[in-house]
Parts: sequence; C-alpha cells; structure tokens
Amino acid sequence: MAKDLEAAPGGGDYAPKDYSDPPPAPLFDAEELTKWSLYRAVIAEFVATLLFLYITVATVIGYKHQSDPTATPTDAACSGVGILGIAWAFGGMIFVLVYCTAGVSGGHINPAVTFGLFLARKVSLVRAVLYIVAQCLGAICGVGLVKGFQSAFYVRYGGGANELSSGYTKGTGLAAEIIGTFVLVYTVFSATDPKRSARDSHVPVLAPLPIGFAVFMVHLATIPITGTGINPARSLGAAVIYNNEKAWDDHWIFWVGPFIGAAIAAAYHQYVLRASATKLGSSASLNRG
Amino acid sequence: MAKDLEAAPGGGDYAPKDYSDPPPAPLFDAEELTKWSLYRAVIAEFVATLLFLYITVATVIGYKHQSDPTATPTDAACSGVGILGIAWAFGGMIFVLVYCTAGVSGGHINPAVTFGLFLARKVSLVRAVLYIVAQCLGAICGVGLVKGFQSAFYVRYGGGANELSSGYTKGTGLAAEIIGTFVLVYTVFSATDPKRSARDSHVPVLAPLPIGFAVFMVHLATIPITGTGINPARSLGAAVIYNNEKAWDDHWIFWVGPFIGAAIAAAYHQYVLRASATKLGSSASLNRG
Amino acid sequence: MAKDLEAAPGGGDYAPKDYSDPPPAPLFDAEELTKWSLYRAVIAEFVATLLFLYITVATVIGYKHQSDPTATPTDAACSGVGILGIAWAFGGMIFVLVYCTAGVSGGHINPAVTFGLFLARKVSLVRAVLYIVAQCLGAICGVGLVKGFQSAFYVRYGGGANELSSGYTKGTGLAAEIIGTFVLVYTVFSATDPKRSARDSHVPVLAPLPIGFAVFMVHLATIPITGTGINPARSLGAAVIYNNEKAWDDHWIFWVGPFIGAAIAAAYHQYVLRASATKLGSSASLNRG
Amino acid sequence: MAKDLEAAPGGGDYAPKDYSDPPPAPLFDAEELTKWSLYRAVIAEFVATLLFLYITVATVIGYKHQSDPTATPTDAACSGVGILGIAWAFGGMIFVLVYCTAGVSGGHINPAVTFGLFLARKVSLVRAVLYIVAQCLGAICGVGLVKGFQSAFYVRYGGGANELSSGYTKGTGLAAEIIGTFVLVYTVFSATDPKRSARDSHVPVLAPLPIGFAVFMVHLATIPITGTGINPARSLGAAVIYNNEKAWDDHWIFWVGPFIGAAIAAAYHQYVLRASATKLGSSASLNRG
Repeated sequence: MAKDLEAAPGGGDYAPKDYSDPPPAPLFDAEELTKWSLYRAVIAEFVATLLFLYITVATVIGYKHQSDPTATPTDAACSGVGILGIAWAFGGMIFVLVYCTAGVSGGHINPAVTFGLFLARKVSLVRAVLYIVAQCLGAICGVGLVKGFQSAFYVRYGGGANELSSGYTKGTGLAAEIIGTFVLVYTVFSATDPKRSARDSHVPVLAPLPIGFAVFMVHLATIPITGTGINPARSLGAAVIYNNEKAWDDHWIFWVGPFIGAAIAAAYHQYVLRASATKLGSSASLNRG
Repeated sequence: MAKDLEAAPGGGDYAPKDYSDPPPAPLFDAEELTKWSLYRAVIAEFVATLLFLYITVATVIGYKHQSDPTATPTDAACSGVGILGIAWAFGGMIFVLVYCTAGVSGGHINPAVTFGLFLARKVSLVRAVLYIVAQCLGAICGVGLVKGFQSAFYVRYGGGANELSSGYTKGTGLAAEIIGTFVLVYTVFSATDPKRSARDSHVPVLAPLPIGFAVFMVHLATIPITGTGINPARSLGAAVIYNNEKAWDDHWIFWVGPFIGAAIAAAYHQYVLRASATKLGSSASLNRG
Repeated sequence: MAKDLEAAPGGGDYAPKDYSDPPPAPLFDAEELTKWSLYRAVIAEFVATLLFLYITVATVIGYKHQSDPTATPTDAACSGVGILGIAWAFGGMIFVLVYCTAGVSGGHINPAVTFGLFLARKVSLVRAVLYIVAQCLGAICGVGLVKGFQSAFYVRYGGGANELSSGYTKGTGLAAEIIGTFVLVYTVFSATDPKRSARDSHVPVLAPLPIGFAVFMVHLATIPITGTGINPARSLGAAVIYNNEKAWDDHWIFWVGPFIGAAIAAAYHQYVLRASATKLGSSASLNRG
Repeated sequence: MAKDLEAAPGGGDYAPKDYSDPPPAPLFDAEELTKWSLYRAVIAEFVATLLFLYITVATVIGYKHQSDPTATPTDAACSGVGILGIAWAFGGMIFVLVYCTAGVSGGHINPAVTFGLFLARKVSLVRAVLYIVAQCLGAICGVGLVKGFQSAFYVRYGGGANELSSGYTKGTGLAAEIIGTFVLVYTVFSATDPKRSARDSHVPVLAPLPIGFAVFMVHLATIPITGTGINPARSLGAAVIYNNEKAWDDHWIFWVGPFIGAAIAAAYHQYVLRASATKLGSSASLNRG
C-alpha cells in the first residue's frame, strides 16, 4: 500500500517532518555524571541482567537435570521443559525485563544492544561503559546465584556456558552470533525509531514483545550451534562462574560476534533504511497493504 | 534515548509533573466498608483465585496422569503437556485473570501482590486483609473442585502441592521463592507506575501480558526446586486439600518467601527506581534508544 | 488501588457516566432481516468456524498419526506437536479469528458465546439463531475437509470428536464443560464491557488475545477429561462427520454444559460485577495498584 | 454488539464515511521507479526474507539432527525443539519481521501476500514484481547460509524443502496449501482494512501479532501434509539449495496453491466482507457483544 500513501500527502517529498530526531548523544557529558538518574539506570541494568541470568540459567540446569537418564530413571528425556522451554525462558525474560526497565534505563540488558545504540549516538560513551560494566557484574551475580542454589548440578550440567558445539568451526559459530545479534539489534532499532513512532502510533505499543520474540527465535535456531550468546554479558557471566577451559577458549566469539552484528544492524538501519529520512513522505505505511 | 530526553523538556528537573500520584491509601477506612464496590472486588478475587487454581492444578494432575508409565502403557512420558505446558497454565491464567478482574478489584489474585501493594500504600489494610482471605478461600475451593473431579488421580499425583524437591535445602527453597516473587511484584509495580502511564501511554496497554509472562518465566526456572509457589494462596489451597505432612512441613516457606520478595520489590521500586520522583524530567524514555 | 480512585472523582457515586450502555437488542427485529450486514456477518461466522475446525482437527489428527508407534516406528511419541500444540491450535485460532471477524460479526465462532451474549441482550434472537446455525454448518464443513484430506487417518484417530475419557463420570464431564465455558464467556464479557472501554482505553486493545488465551488454558486443563468442548459447534461438527455411537451418546454434555456455563457467566457479569453500574465512580482501576 | 451499533448512528446506512479508501495503485507507475523509497523497500524485503529462511530452516535442521537417534544416542527423539518449536519459528519470525519491515516495505516477506495485495490494487505491478524477485533471492541466500553453516547435516535432513508427505495425493497437498494461504492472507486483509482502522482504533495495534499467529497455526495443521509452504519464496529457496528431484517435482504445488489461496482471500474480502462498503453504518462492532 506504500504506493498510495506516498501520493497521499500530495508531493509527500516536501511534507514537513512530523517527528523530531533527538540530537546525537555527546561522547562524554560531565553533567550526566552528576545526575541520580544515571546511577539509577545503572542499578536497573544490573538488577535486570542479574534476574535475566538467574531465571534462564536455572531453567537450563533444571532441564538438563530432569532429562538426565542417569539421574531420573524413567522416561527422563521428556520430563523437562525442553529446548523450546529454554528458548522461551530467554525470550520471555527479555520481554518482561525490557518492559520493566525501559522507562528507567532504556532496557538494554545486553552489551551488544548498548554498543549498537552507542554507535547510533543514542547513548553517550560514559553511559555505555557504565551500562556494560553493570550488565557484566549483574550477569556474574545471576549465574552465581544459580550455582549457589544448585551446586552439584551446576557443574555437572555445563553451567549454562556458551560453547561451540562439536562439528562446527569457529567461523560458523562467529557467523551465527553475528546474524543472531543482527536480528535482535535490528528489531530494537525498528521498535524505537522516532520516525515511526510519530507516524504509526501503534508500532511502539508492542516494542518489548517483538524484541523478546526476536531473542526467542534466535535461540530456536542457534542453540544447536553455539548455545546462543548474542549477549556478551550472558556469556561472560556463565564463563566466569563455570570457569572451564573450553568455555574460555571460545569466549572471544561471544564478544566479537555480537559487537559486529550490532554494528551491522546500526549501519543497515542508519544508511539503508533511514537514508531517505529527508524524503519522509515516500516511506511505506505500516498497513501491509 | 535517556540522555536526550532528559535535556528535551529544557531543564527537565523543574518540569511540572504530568501525572498525579494518588494519595496513599489509609490504613483503615470505615467508609470503605459501606461500599458495594469493596465486596464486589472481594467476590471477584475469590472467583478469580478459584478459577486460577482449578485450571492450573487440573493441568498438573492431568499431565502427571498422562505421563505415568504405569497408567498409560506406551510412550507415556511424552503424551502430556509437559512442564512447559504447566508453566504456560500458571502464566497464561494470570494473564487472563488480571485482564478480566483488573477493572473490578485491581486483579491481585495473590496475597503476595496484595501485601506488596499494601506496603506501598496502594490498598488499605482492611481491603488487603479481605482480599487475602478471599484469595485463600478461593484457592481452597479451586483445588477442591479438582479433587472432586479427579479423586483417584488427585492424591496419587501429589495434589499439586508445593514441596521442596529432594536435594535442595530449606534455605535454597526460601531464596528461590523470594527471588521469584520479586520478579513478579517488580513487574506489577513497573506495569502500574502512574509516572509511567502518563509519559509512555503505551506501557500500560500490555500490563496484564508481562505480568502473566513473569509468572510463566518463574515457573520455568523454579518448578524443579519448589514446584514454584510465589503465591501463598495457591500453596495454601493445595496444602489444605492434599493435607499431607510433608507439604505442611514446608508450608511456611511459601508464605515467608513470597512476603519477603514482595517487600523487597516494593522497597526497590519506592526507594531506588522512584527515588528521584521529584526530578521527573531526568528519567529515561521507554524508547530503548 | 481501587480505594484511591474511588475517592478521586470526588463523590464518585454521583459522577456522570462516561460511557453509554447500548440499548438491549430486541428479541426480534424484522428490519434487521433486510440488511446485507446481517447476512455478511452470518457468512463470516460460517467461514471462521469452518477454518477453526479445519486447522484444529487437522492438528489433532496429524499429531495422533505422528505419535502412533505402530505407524511411525522410532521414537514416535515425541515427534508430534503434543497436547500443548493442540491446546495452542485451539487457542491461537480463536485469537486470530476473533481478531479477523470481530469487525464483521462480533467474532463469536461459538454457539455458547452467542447464547451468552443473547442472554445479556447484546444480540437479537434472530441474529443469535442465524449465527448458531452458521457456526454448526461451518464446523461440519471444516471437519469434513479434514476427513477428505486424511481419510484413512481420520477414522483411525478418533475424528477429533469430544468424548468423556474413561474414568470420569458424566457429572464430572458436565461440570468441567460448565466451568471451562464460564472461563471463556467471562473473559468475553470482561473484554467487551462498554463501561471499561470508556475508562481504561487500553483494555480492549488486547481483547482477542485474552479470549484466545482463555481457550488455550481451558484446553490444557480439560483435554484429559472431555477432550474439551466449550463450543457446541466444534463438538457437533466432529460428531456428525465422525458419526460414532460413543461420541453421540456423550454429545448432550457438549451442548448443556457450555450453555449453562455461558448463562452463569452472563449472570455473574450482570448481577455481581456490574450490579453497581449506577455507582460508576466506585469501581476499581485497571492499574492493579 | 452488532445490532445496536447499527442503529446507533441513526440511519447508519447514510452515515458519511469516516475513513478514506486509498485510490487503487496504478498497474505501472514510471515515477515510482525514480524513488529511493522503492529500492529501500525492495532491499528490506530481501533482507527480511533472508533472515526468515535462515532462522526457520536452521531450526528445522537443528531439530532433525537433535532428534536423530543414530546421531545422538540417548533419548534423542525428545531433545529437540519439536514440531511445535518449528511452528513457533515460522510464526514468530513472521511476527518479528512484519513488525520491523512494515514501515519500510509493508512487510510482505511472501510472494503470495504480495500477489493478494496486488490483486486488491494495493501495490503496483512494478512493485509487486520487484518484491517477489527480492523475496525469492533473499530466500535462496537465507537457505544458502544454513547449508554453509551445517553442510553435512543440511543434505542429510532434507534441507528444509517442502514436499508432499507419503500417503497424501497432490490434490490434497494443493488444497491444504490453498486453505493455509487463505487463512494467512485473510488475516492480512483483516488487519490492514482501512475501514476498520478508522472505526476500531485498537485493531491495527496488534496487526503483526495475529499475522504471525496465523502462520503458526497453519504450520501446526499442515506440517504433516506438505511441511507447510504458504510462501512460494520459502519453498523456492529451499528447493534451489537442496536441489532434489522430489522437491522439484512437487514444487508447482507451492506456487499454484498459495496464489490461488491469496486470490480467494482477496475476493472474499473485497466482494463479501466489504461488499456493503457503501453501507458503513451497518457493520458490526469489534466488541464481540
């Protein structure tokens, strides 16, 4: 239906912008450091990432215990929540936590998301660094809680750490992380584009839901390959607590991949999808037809 | 993104509040007792908790029967809805019932939620007590219905009661209940913060959905540990009808844990996230970027 | 939070109504019969019920075939979508179809819903009868399509018909159908209450989603008991095409139960929840707190 | 409810239209070819279809590997995401991608959707052809990525290609594709009807969600029959990369079926549901009652 709407405003190319792009965030803003709202946001990121890792890694360990035929004798394989349940845990928690923390910190809960938004100049360097530190600490504490609660099972069932599955090259793992993070960060940019919010008032209503679903989808596809990182804090938290050599050997993949994926998503959004930002009238409508 | 919006209202710290905090509820309000709306709300809580327990415990018992290899001979383990289905039953019913009763009673359906909202002075003491009594009676009736319908299976499959799984200490169970209830009550506070509603008109649209998802997520993670209470009425209802010694021995965990978790969530929301309520302009935007 | 809001409008009991109750539908309205919109609505109900039964019964038959160990030799039990998938098929289709047909016919797709809305005087007798006939014919055609596509499997796997499972009395089956339909019709009334729409503009946004979830939840709980009817057209369609004596013997349960459940839901909504409709100001807010 | 609202505007049949039907798109519009917005939309369709096929086919191959008893010895059948997980992958990705690309290209991601919207004169011929080419190329690249990542498994587990299952005739497969695509395209039309948007402002809010659910539902029902195409680009992409004779033999079904289904949905929407567009006042309300 794109076509019609283009014509609708009558020479849409010259229509005045009905939205305002916020100015790019400064790289460093000393004044920001004096505001309570920054620290509150950092605390919210810490707590959210802690809860994210606690719930998801507990689900992974619980599932592996339930489906371990040596631990629970009969019909074990079916008694856990399954890989589908694990994928739901990751996606569903992102939905809940983005919903809860969006109004306080923006709801990143993921260094790759923070990095992507920093590249797009949506957050200052100072805020980005503080968020990433808080996310990593939160993730370590969250996995630590699971280890505390399930000490014996935790080590036995792999600690929820991200590793390359046997049969896949490092290149494949890296590529899978890049594409997976691209899907997530592309969804984040689509959900929060101010151009859209102005025009299609219904788009942001759902913002946390498609972001959560994007995480769910990527887990369905890439759990067999890398266990699915797409979130360096999540990978770091599990690696630190599990502290296994194989997990550390592969660990770079779960930082390099997500950061490259986030950068590509930021570039795609900025230079391809928004390239004609000056031609507002010509963009297609949300109504699929 | 956060940073930009802060600047936007131009000296946001002094911007007039665009929302109104309702006054704190009185501890005791005699006039309230004379209103039909209070009793209607109490009835709605009773009916909603009854339906909640009926559907969820029936799902648990039905699943355990289907996957019992001695009851249904072939391939039994996989023929039920699985733990994933049980987690959906709890989370989905909370979504439906919060949606249905929110306009009548606020849609608590859980003494821990009522307690948290009472601590935040959102409900009066009188209303909180009546709600909790109604929720407990409703839960007992709901589980009673399941026992009536499935008498033989009900006792055989554990009655849907919350108990500590073998291999976990009481401390672990208590901590799991505290964190799980924190996730739920934190989501409830985030979804119903009047500060947010005013600014991000799209947040409350989804309120019952993330609340239901929070319950779903906590069940995925903690069913292996305690069966997941995070709702004292749910635990009490099953314990009364099942009336098993082990269930009663562990029962205190399912009151103390949820109440502590709800209190921490209320404090976190009040003293950390809303501490700068006087600095409205400085809070970040929901738009993640 | 109820309490505060009650006080808010200052003597809420005397506040002017900010919504309008539509006048009750006449029992018989001759003029209605001359309008194309009535016939269009009847066609939409026919098509929607046909699609509902086609998708759901095809899912049931496909699942039973996949998990039949005599048909697919290895690891059969896990290869289908499971009872969880069947419950999703019923609930998800109701969500999609209510969404699609709500604007044309009101999106009933279920004689029990039509009956409940007729009791509440929301549809005329003439419209209710035509809807129910269209729904039953649509259901028969939908199941007929499945039988046409899967002829051999259809009869072998029970034809998707509703029957009492062994081990349950007729009374239990009837009660399960009554409560299940109550959950559905109560959700329908809550979602479409004009009093709410006016006040909490965000409630109706989600209307088709909780209605679909209510169907999903009831299936999780009562598939083990009756296969879950809560929709006489669904039960009739499968019974007519499957045409099995046992299915016909139990068939009355799937008309009497849903109609009683719908009547109770209509009465609960009308006489309990809305009893103080004249005291609008005193109702609680959707915001849980 | 329908009836009341009809009467409400007082002689509704003569009420002025409160929405504007956009003019039909021209068959060929030379000016369109000079606009960046067209090429941007084509790029967005390419990228979205690539991501769609990458995630979904990776899920299919990963699942088949996990549940292959010869590859993973113990309890293999249950360790994958299951057919339910596959259905979620298809439906969930459509939800995410329609949400993300709706504002840029309309979010078709499916030649059958483009064809249906072209028949309804919502997109020009030139745009329809470019979209379909982009979708097919995107799908080929997406499946190519999966083959690159999982080379050994890809061929061994059927390459995610659509084929008629044994035991079904070509006629059944064709009919299943027609009905499945009808469900999808009917949902698309319902979600984007401008008549509705004007009246029921809450309908479009959810647009991408029911569209995704429609895809999810159709997969639950027809995976056992054809693997579920309902998207010629998806079928072509897998057929080209898998390049298996059986897949090519059945391939016409996955173009002819979806195009017929889309045409019927367009006709149903245009000539039945909207036939009385001149009688606006007589249409029923979204509120089910």
